[in-house]
Amino acid sequence: MAYQAPAALAALTQQLATLPGVGAKAAQRLAFHLLAAPPEKSRMLAQALLDSAEQIHPCPVCGNFTDRELCPICEDSGRQRQLLCVVEQVSDLISMERVSGCPGLYHVLGGVISPLDGIGPEKLNIASLLRRVEEGDFREIIMATNPTVEGEATAQYLAKKLRRDGLKITRLAHGLPVGGTLSYVDEATLELAMSGRREL
Amino acid sequence: MAYQAPAALAALTQQLATLPGVGAKAAQRLAFHLLAAPPEKSRMLAQALLDSAEQIHPCPVCGNFTDRELCPICEDSGRQRQLLCVVEQVSDLISMERVSGCPGLYHVLGGVISPLDGIGPEKLNIASLLRRVEEGDFREIIMATNPTVEGEATAQYLAKKLRRDGLKITRLAHGLPVGGTLSYVDEATLELAMSGRREL
Repeated sequence: MAYQAPAALAALTQQLATLPGVGAKAAQRLAFHLLAAPPEKSRMLAQALLDSAEQIHPCPVCGNFTDRELCPICEDSGRQRQLLCVVEQVSDLISMERVSGCPGLYHVLGGVISPLDGIGPEKLNIASLLRRVEEGDFREIIMATNPTVEGEATAQYLAKKLRRDGLKITRLAHGLPVGGTLSYVDEATLELAMSGRREL
Repeated sequence: MAYQAPAALAALTQQLATLPGVGAKAAQRLAFHLLAAPPEKSRMLAQALLDSAEQIHPCPVCGNFTDRELCPICEDSGRQRQLLCVVEQVSDLISMERVSGCPGLYHVLGGVISPLDGIGPEKLNIASLLRRVEEGDFREIIMATNPTVEGEATAQYLAKKLRRDGLKITRLAHGLPVGGTLSYVDEATLELAMSGRREL
């Protein structure tokens, strides 16, 4: 008779294997780690999962995660309300905030337009962006989507939709990464670094 | 003011980062994945964690995980009760069972003797192994600890403690891995494969 792991252990392994980047082997290793640890550890992780599933939701204005009505950035009265930074994901927003990158507000798209993956504009937070810009008093929109084919295409699409008099639409600069060497930089980046050169 | 993620999100990220092989970046990625998924996903994972923390415990006889009094292998009347296979971890037991490797019973040590890491015999399930062999009617003990320095040392230590008349103590064979090539096999393995050669 083939050996069957206890049902609760099999269920835990199966749940862990649904996480991104966690394969069957890693899921088993995580489950064994949790079972070998004091049960308190599993309970704390379970509680954190339940708390965040209960309390965290997207900010209805910008799409950032929040546990209040609006997110801390939308609520922050010290932010420049005429500057809007459009990012793909909340993780991009957090990367920007880590370097105090944008003194204004954000809008999280939730992804990029990617027809091959069946993701059209209607699947992203684009309608809310258009309405927000229509009704708001923005002077500049920074398109901070990733420098990928889809990110560029999404930025171009949005720029076309949003363009109007008195509204500046910008894109993050391309160029050499700090600490990089010329010989290892790809040609497209080097060309853009050349054309975007600045006076010393 | 530095941006603060909502407390429940920070707590979830922190809990996930305590898992082995999950760094700060991966923990954030997992947390965002769970928040972007339907809340049901987090709840199911939380439930699996709570269920296993509640139901799964080590088998008092062999150390395998179980949700009953004894583990399915100790309870299985079809097993050879005179053959005992000693492994380091439950994951090793499962690897053995996957190839129907041992028709007998198991004993899970919970690790290996490793003085450098402060792990002496008293921190492993060794007292219970000695008592079990003393009181039982075993004919053969297979030392299936890993072929590492610590695994070998632990096997030698246990063999010395367990040795008595009428009890065969064996070790898994060393040799060429199936599908491997001679030129890529390390010298120690090749020497052992040579000395352990068998007649065709």
